[in-house]
Amino acid sequence: MLTDLFSPSVQHWLDIVGIFVFAISGALLGVRKNFDVFGMAVLAEVTALGGGLFRDLVIGAVPPAAFSDLGYFVTPLIATLIVFFLHPEVERITSAVNVFDAAGLGLFCVTGTVKAYAHGLGLTQSATLGLATAVGGGVLRDVLAHEVPSLLRWDRDLYAVPAMAGATTAALMLKFGALHGATNAIPVVVGCGLRLLAMRFHWRAPRAWHRRSAAAEEVAPGVGPNVTPRKATRR
Amino acid sequence: MLTDLFSPSVQHWLDIVGIFVFAISGALLGVRKNFDVFGMAVLAEVTALGGGLFRDLVIGAVPPAAFSDLGYFVTPLIATLIVFFLHPEVERITSAVNVFDAAGLGLFCVTGTVKAYAHGLGLTQSATLGLATAVGGGVLRDVLAHEVPSLLRWDRDLYAVPAMAGATTAALMLKFGALHGATNAIPVVVGCGLRLLAMRFHWRAPRAWHRRSAAAEEVAPGVGPNVTPRKATRR
Amino acid sequence: MLTDLFSPSVQHWLDIVGIFVFAISGALLGVRKNFDVFGMAVLAEVTALGGGLFRDLVIGAVPPAAFSDLGYFVTPLIATLIVFFLHPEVERITSAVNVFDAAGLGLFCVTGTVKAYAHGLGLTQSATLGLATAVGGGVLRDVLAHEVPSLLRWDRDLYAVPAMAGATTAALMLKFGALHGATNAIPVVVGCGLRLLAMRFHWRAPRAWHRRSAAAEEVAPGVGPNVTPRKATRR
Repeated sequence: MLTDLFSPSVQHWLDIVGIFVFAISGALLGVRKNFDVFGMAVLAEVTALGGGLFRDLVIGAVPPAAFSDLGYFVTPLIATLIVFFLHPEVERITSAVNVFDAAGLGLFCVTGTVKAYAHGLGLTQSATLGLATAVGGGVLRDVLAHEVPSLLRWDRDLYAVPAMAGATTAALMLKFGALHGATNAIPVVVGCGLRLLAMRFHWRAPRAWHRRSAAAEEVAPGVGPNVTPRKATRR
Repeated sequence: MLTDLFSPSVQHWLDIVGIFVFAISGALLGVRKNFDVFGMAVLAEVTALGGGLFRDLVIGAVPPAAFSDLGYFVTPLIATLIVFFLHPEVERITSAVNVFDAAGLGLFCVTGTVKAYAHGLGLTQSATLGLATAVGGGVLRDVLAHEVPSLLRWDRDLYAVPAMAGATTAALMLKFGALHGATNAIPVVVGCGLRLLAMRFHWRAPRAWHRRSAAAEEVAPGVGPNVTPRKATRR
Repeated sequence: MLTDLFSPSVQHWLDIVGIFVFAISGALLGVRKNFDVFGMAVLAEVTALGGGLFRDLVIGAVPPAAFSDLGYFVTPLIATLIVFFLHPEVERITSAVNVFDAAGLGLFCVTGTVKAYAHGLGLTQSATLGLATAVGGGVLRDVLAHEVPSLLRWDRDLYAVPAMAGATTAALMLKFGALHGATNAIPVVVGCGLRLLAMRFHWRAPRAWHRRSAAAEEVAPGVGPNVTPRKATRR
């Protein structure tokens, strides 16, 4: 199957799967936040399509895929209905959903990189947009749900790094013209595999050095007028 | 008046009214959040123009109307000044403001749908953008003000549904070429009327089924690495 | 140096300096929020490039400068590394960083205004985009970090006003064709200087009149269905 990863039909179905799983995580957060069914649908749509929407706006591909492909738009609504009626059951298969989520992560970071590169962006920027495509939806979901984006939190298993690795691999393969046919699967497997390992072994990223030092604790004014002092963040 | 709803002059004045009322709600939230006058102005601008700005970016209509029509930009500033000096009086006429807000909701969901359709989007996507045009500003306002977007909250009278109904009606009428002249008023009245009824009878949307079930309560890890466990949302 | 403020080479280096300082404030907030190194990098990128990204999306300059110039993208990563290893030292030179931040503010509000005007926007809209260019990154940073945007807070020294003054000065000089060569420095100095004065003398902006009045305190329902009642904001 992965042999012709980017053949229109297969690609489309892979996208739908990724969108569906991302939408599930959005709808489930809606349940936890005690939102109504429409709030769940909004979170599902944003989680599933937000990353690609941002990518398309940046590369000037308007209307974005999210608004030109009906399947992309309807899928999150189906996910919302499933969660609405069956969320206890869905919660129970969390681990399965996480595996699919990792697959979606690996897929989207690669498709995002390839699409950005096809629109003439540099390799580094393409990889960055690939990363944004994969993780952007989750960040938007957390912001709308009034949560600290877990992408930024140190107490979460690595999520950005696997996407970064997948996108970088894809960019490098593009640079050397090695991304075609069967090889398309490689960066996807890299991103998806690293994410699965990060979940399995609870890999974390380091926080700033000496952050427990006095200097860090007793900072009063903050740097930059817009930065709230540390205390204020301790609600 | 509504006969030539979309004649340039009338349309423009209706837009100004809708923008003004949305801006009032933004500025009032600024007062409640204890922001200074500039914070109030930012919230007013974002609430009034955010939805249309998002729509224009998605359909590629740049510069967006918000940045090409001076009246659209100045109106929220006037609303800010009024709230700045008279907000106790403005609070007192809440119900009146809410009626105008419903009118703005009905109007924007239709104009958003029509403009998106005119830019070649499908009917479903056009209706979705119409919905986003009507409610997007309020969501941005709440996110900037560090509130849970009330659009997503179950304990609020229906807001998205009336806009959805108005946008869908407009899209269906577009499909059957029935949206012209006097009929332009129909979807606006649908959206505005449903919103007024929702406020009058406190219509709410349902939350996920069985959400009180044990399974839902004792969920620990959360689905998707980025989803914060339920407890964490109980601050 | 400022004589040819907008000569490609000089301009580029001034941009880099501004981006670097804004990135420092983003990374430092990441440290205070206890984010990991990748969260710090995300905040640094968003703070440094967010304002310009918004401006470029609005004027339709895609791909935005943030994604076409590698230097713009790499600089925040360098700032992140510095803060990661040396943040106690960086905290210690807060005041120095704030001076550079003021310089970046003055520079970006002018470059933003000029670029928007060059893309055919009106003078008022150009000045507004200039303001958004200068302060947008900080707002995005606070939203992602789950903080109340300090731009909106009354208990912060003026930040938007100096940028507004600089952008307005630039717009007026554009109107009268007086913005060229040496004069380019004037609006930058206006914005930067006012900001330095605001920090020195702790200038604040006024909040709504009578806001302590009973009417304001005991407001229950809120105006607009999406506005959370005052109490709710008192967490």
